[in-house]
Amino acid sequence: MTTTIRSVVLFLGAVGAVSAGARSASAQRAPRELALAWSEVAPGVWRATAGSPERVSLLGTAGGSPQRDALARVGSASFPLSRREIVAQRVDGKLVLRFPLGAREQLYGLGLGFRALQQRGTVKELHVDHYGGSDNGRTHAPVPFYVSSAGYGVLIDVARYVTVYAGTAVRTDSRHPPEVRDRNLDKRWSAQPTSDAVEVLVPASGATVYVFAGPTPLDAVRRYNLYSGGGVLPPKWGLGFLHRVPTLFTAQQAADEVAQFASRGYPLDVLGLEPGWQSASYPGTFVWDRTRFPDPDAFLATMKRAGVRVNLWMNPYVAPSSPLFAALAPRSGSHTVWTGIVPDFTLPAVRAAVLEHFDRELVRRGVSGYKLDEVDGYDRWLWPDHATFPSGLSGEQMRQIYALAIQRATLDAFRARDQRTYGLVRASNAGAAPLPYVLYNDSYSHQEFITALASSGFIGVLWTPEVRSSRTSEEWLRRMQSVCFSPLAMLNAWSDGTEPWSFPDVADRVRDVMRLRIRLLPYLYSAFARYHFDGVPPVRAMALEPGFRVEQPAMPGAVSSTDNPYAVATQRDVRDQFMLGDALLVAPMFTGDTARSVVLPGGRWYDFYTGAFVGAGEVITVKPGLDRIPVFVRDGAVVPLLAGDWLHVPAPGEPADLELRHYGAEPGSFRLYDDDGTTFGYERGELSWTPLVVSRAADGTLRGETPAPPSGKPFGYRTLTWRMMTPR
Amino acid sequence: MTTTIRSVVLFLGAVGAVSAGARSASAQRAPRELALAWSEVAPGVWRATAGSPERVSLLGTAGGSPQRDALARVGSASFPLSRREIVAQRVDGKLVLRFPLGAREQLYGLGLGFRALQQRGTVKELHVDHYGGSDNGRTHAPVPFYVSSAGYGVLIDVARYVTVYAGTAVRTDSRHPPEVRDRNLDKRWSAQPTSDAVEVLVPASGATVYVFAGPTPLDAVRRYNLYSGGGVLPPKWGLGFLHRVPTLFTAQQAADEVAQFASRGYPLDVLGLEPGWQSASYPGTFVWDRTRFPDPDAFLATMKRAGVRVNLWMNPYVAPSSPLFAALAPRSGSHTVWTGIVPDFTLPAVRAAVLEHFDRELVRRGVSGYKLDEVDGYDRWLWPDHATFPSGLSGEQMRQIYALAIQRATLDAFRARDQRTYGLVRASNAGAAPLPYVLYNDSYSHQEFITALASSGFIGVLWTPEVRSSRTSEEWLRRMQSVCFSPLAMLNAWSDGTEPWSFPDVADRVRDVMRLRIRLLPYLYSAFARYHFDGVPPVRAMALEPGFRVEQPAMPGAVSSTDNPYAVATQRDVRDQFMLGDALLVAPMFTGDTARSVVLPGGRWYDFYTGAFVGAGEVITVKPGLDRIPVFVRDGAVVPLLAGDWLHVPAPGEPADLELRHYGAEPGSFRLYDDDGTTFGYERGELSWTPLVVSRAADGTLRGETPAPPSGKPFGYRTLTWRMMTPR
Repeated sequence: MTTTIRSVVLFLGAVGAVSAGARSASAQRAPRELALAWSEVAPGVWRATAGSPERVSLLGTAGGSPQRDALARVGSASFPLSRREIVAQRVDGKLVLRFPLGAREQLYGLGLGFRALQQRGTVKELHVDHYGGSDNGRTHAPVPFYVSSAGYGVLIDVARYVTVYAGTAVRTDSRHPPEVRDRNLDKRWSAQPTSDAVEVLVPASGATVYVFAGPTPLDAVRRYNLYSGGGVLPPKWGLGFLHRVPTLFTAQQAADEVAQFASRGYPLDVLGLEPGWQSASYPGTFVWDRTRFPDPDAFLATMKRAGVRVNLWMNPYVAPSSPLFAALAPRSGSHTVWTGIVPDFTLPAVRAAVLEHFDRELVRRGVSGYKLDEVDGYDRWLWPDHATFPSGLSGEQMRQIYALAIQRATLDAFRARDQRTYGLVRASNAGAAPLPYVLYNDSYSHQEFITALASSGFIGVLWTPEVRSSRTSEEWLRRMQSVCFSPLAMLNAWSDGTEPWSFPDVADRVRDVMRLRIRLLPYLYSAFARYHFDGVPPVRAMALEPGFRVEQPAMPGAVSSTDNPYAVATQRDVRDQFMLGDALLVAPMFTGDTARSVVLPGGRWYDFYTGAFVGAGEVITVKPGLDRIPVFVRDGAVVPLLAGDWLHVPAPGEPADLELRHYGAEPGSFRLYDDDGTTFGYERGELSWTPLVVSRAADGTLRGETPAPPSGKPFGYRTLTWRMMTPR
Repeated sequence: MTTTIRSVVLFLGAVGAVSAGARSASAQRAPRELALAWSEVAPGVWRATAGSPERVSLLGTAGGSPQRDALARVGSASFPLSRREIVAQRVDGKLVLRFPLGAREQLYGLGLGFRALQQRGTVKELHVDHYGGSDNGRTHAPVPFYVSSAGYGVLIDVARYVTVYAGTAVRTDSRHPPEVRDRNLDKRWSAQPTSDAVEVLVPASGATVYVFAGPTPLDAVRRYNLYSGGGVLPPKWGLGFLHRVPTLFTAQQAADEVAQFASRGYPLDVLGLEPGWQSASYPGTFVWDRTRFPDPDAFLATMKRAGVRVNLWMNPYVAPSSPLFAALAPRSGSHTVWTGIVPDFTLPAVRAAVLEHFDRELVRRGVSGYKLDEVDGYDRWLWPDHATFPSGLSGEQMRQIYALAIQRATLDAFRARDQRTYGLVRASNAGAAPLPYVLYNDSYSHQEFITALASSGFIGVLWTPEVRSSRTSEEWLRRMQSVCFSPLAMLNAWSDGTEPWSFPDVADRVRDVMRLRIRLLPYLYSAFARYHFDGVPPVRAMALEPGFRVEQPAMPGAVSSTDNPYAVATQRDVRDQFMLGDALLVAPMFTGDTARSVVLPGGRWYDFYTGAFVGAGEVITVKPGLDRIPVFVRDGAVVPLLAGDWLHVPAPGEPADLELRHYGAEPGSFRLYDDDGTTFGYERGELSWTPLVVSRAADGTLRGETPAPPSGKPFGYRTLTWRMMTPR
């Protein structure tokens, strides 16, 4: 140990020499410090500007309004970091931010991830792009927000390619420098010495920075979501089943497909049409193709009669032959995408033209929503970073905000008709929680899709592990099981023409889980109400779960904290299971696996299907067979399901009965949310909360109470029947 | 066709509207045009400055002097592009450059590639980094130079992360806009409409830009290399065999290993020591470890007696316990790498301290060169982009030039002793041709290594497809065969302790090809003389070969040029074979393959081993068996080999005989280069060129002429014997 200690002394001594010497050697080296004046802009939310922020921002583009009352309900809090240790500097013409980082903190967020949730030790260049096989920061939602296991969050609200050194860069003047070790012989040598800071390089003149208090990581995420405007509350039909048909399907083929779902007994709420609904695509015309859809109104009326909404694919690049072209061409960027012009959606005139056209051609006719494709990447397809736009935004800025801007631009037509929408988008960014769009992409690893689901909950976005095709019936079933426990249950058959019954040997099981999806509507809808009113993401990684803690050194060379208090002790990165709502833990099965381990948070947990006890705060192994996706329920939880079988979620006014399931050995309760399911009435107070309570009777048994009257209306359920799931 | 034509008319009409409308909508959108004043700075080389170039540049850091006489020998030329179509603009605070691009041009270069040679249709963010599995611009030598099949080259000489849109970005005001097509139904639709420009985004206030004339692509590369200072002429021993031993080997173990090479009859010229030669590594001390090397002088004397040079691994990050630390600490960057300080090699005081220490500890004692590791990436290991350095350079600038600066800093100690060096480096950049370093990395795909070999010749760097270990004896043999036909024949056993004879069933064949490598010395040395004096890269992709042309539409949706004159007709990307010197075409075999196709340039070609005719300007299939790597020789070529078997390249003054091989049916000649092989005497005129001529006698037979006396001296060969390889 003598050598090591001597090295440390030398090192610290020399560090002083570095700083002093450097200053004398070259004055220009010293970065210019920028003031950071923090002000509490909402309960537990602080904002500061560093340098001169640019005109465009992510939150500004997303456009949500902070939910101040809801934030107040999360509670007041004090500033969660040492203000003194947050530093802003001007370096090389750019902004550099530094935030302190404790020895044992875990970091999450920093964009939608497909391979890992824990971010400490990474460098992320946050850049709107497709996911290209590595979590390098280029991703569909490169949200510059991170949440710490220590219970706070940080957002850099800037529409630029921000680089985050998440505990990687080590400064010579670090207050907690890592120990110097000899790689030749010291087994404790680490390839990644521990840094005591998060450093952020912002290639701009300035940025607006937010800090969100906890006290828990989930509270920090809640504050971030509520400050963004609160999470989206989809229409009820959005939580049903969505099927997308092959790209050149005609109206008749689409109607036949819908009829098949009904006749075979598979639920269907939304039909998705792909590029072929348009008279031309890539670039698009945004008008119906009269060959394949000779009478759009008649087609949409047929769909309506079948109880099925219609979602339309589009990307935003406008063909010269589109009726929108004349209005948009002077208001588009300097470069084309697939020969289409790129409208500048930050211009009011563009939004007005799109609103008018979309309303007249689509919304007025009954279209329920969109799939907004290719607003993410690749670089070689989209406009270059140096493209210019009439608003004055650069290509880089536009790349970061384009998906937010187009999501927003599509909403006015629906809001004007007091209709909610719910669709798909390939990119997003900070502030997206209130936007009624779910992310998807072109990659297709089932495992990565589940990691993305878990990742989405850190950054205020939604993700669907869509099903397209499969090599085997086992894979087909496992994917369909997963997607039915996600924010958007979708079979995306645009290319392959698959149908839920495409694999006959598992067709019944697929139907079962699709029907279960519909039965979950009351539970899911209440989970989304929690997203909207309380900021709690409906899908969450285990790291956000109270009582979840799996510590395990994961970094090479990590040692005990006695030996090195600044070694990174990374928690095991549990990325193959997630929470859905407050009660359900979902642990998908992957092709080829007959068993899997499940990490249970603290407390007792029960099997969703049988109510049987499975474990408490431990790692269990389950062998569910093919029939079921493993789902577990927290002790005392109440899970409301639709009673009976449904082929679509209940329409407004359609009578529905509820089965109120209780799991476990403890009393518990659930706040059942309801409203009309399709309008914005809930913003006008037209909503109800109904407490569902299981209490312990005098004889010690558990009993479901007769629900108290709903707190408001509408309340769409006819009968409510308790079912005690756990055998006594 | 009516629809298509109408679309085009609409499109062109509307494009005018875009430009006009945009200008009126927002004056700030219009990029500011910057003047470009081109001046011919050497024959066929033009330079212009755009904006205000930064103080540091790539060529300036590399430090070579333009070889004006040699450039004049390439010939005079006129400016190869339309000056009017080269545009510089200030956009978003950055510099944007645009170069015209013809419909059929192929582009090469833009950094060391591992997967593809042809660059048209790509976007490259040129950034010094390890190769991470995709050719995205992050690579060991991200040289911002491209060469066109039309016969010119372009260099952006700036130490920044430059993004090149190599025929991808399509402007609304393009002079040759791609046709608008409907993806729904038009089979000719392309995912990548053809662009008529290369656009370059330079995130800096300005840049120096060079254009190199042809007339051929090879001439453009030659001018680039000669302007950089001419290619490196390694010491002869550098073209022998290099073996690197495991990291903790002691002096005795190293000596034993060297003895084994001799006793087993395997050639060895250089022994490489890994981190264990230092008293500590990561960060390094730069002093010998006295446990493993108790008497460095005695060890080096032993090696010298064995005829073996010693190469030392190092990375540049300095430990507090190093004697260099005190001098370098005040002159290092703001961040550490593996807890070591990062010296600012652009400072004279740093170079002076390193020169003094390296000379005293290493060069004076007999060390022949270095392996400069980890000057490339990863981001999470190196300093961040916002790091600051005493010279005033930013982390980004330093990342781009660090490898160039450290290569240069190591040279003075050798030059002061009139000794050449030749070593390894993990990164480089523009202007590197004269630097005596060969690139290598951590990836290990044999196929990608060969593509990198071919790629290296476009951008003035050298690459070694080093051998480390193998799963099978077949793989072992195939890799050893390849590396013996590369600029640096190296077995890098630092981790695995492999030896050439590790696979007994192929040990003899490995020995054979290693001995062949040594026999090739006269040919290889002359090829490097061509690199030095004429700028011709010793290893070249087929695309640089006159008479090589394999046209094949490779882009999705590409059509005949009649239908669309701006469709990209990409040549077949032949990346698994390469030229070595002027005469040899090398076509490596990969594990599992018993046959392969070889694309022969125009003219007749012959088997290197037998002299048999194999084909002429065609694609042939060869089945060489395990014994041999396929090598082919151009008709009329003369290939000088050492006669007899050698266990190292000839030492200065060591008598050597030559076998002069002639291949084919035509007369031919070779200019045999020689000098003392180790000093810089060749710069003082101490060199010889000897014409080796095969002429046709009066009876029509071919006859090797008695060589004329060398043009100078030294000339190290004793007897020269003709061997007519091709049977008549």
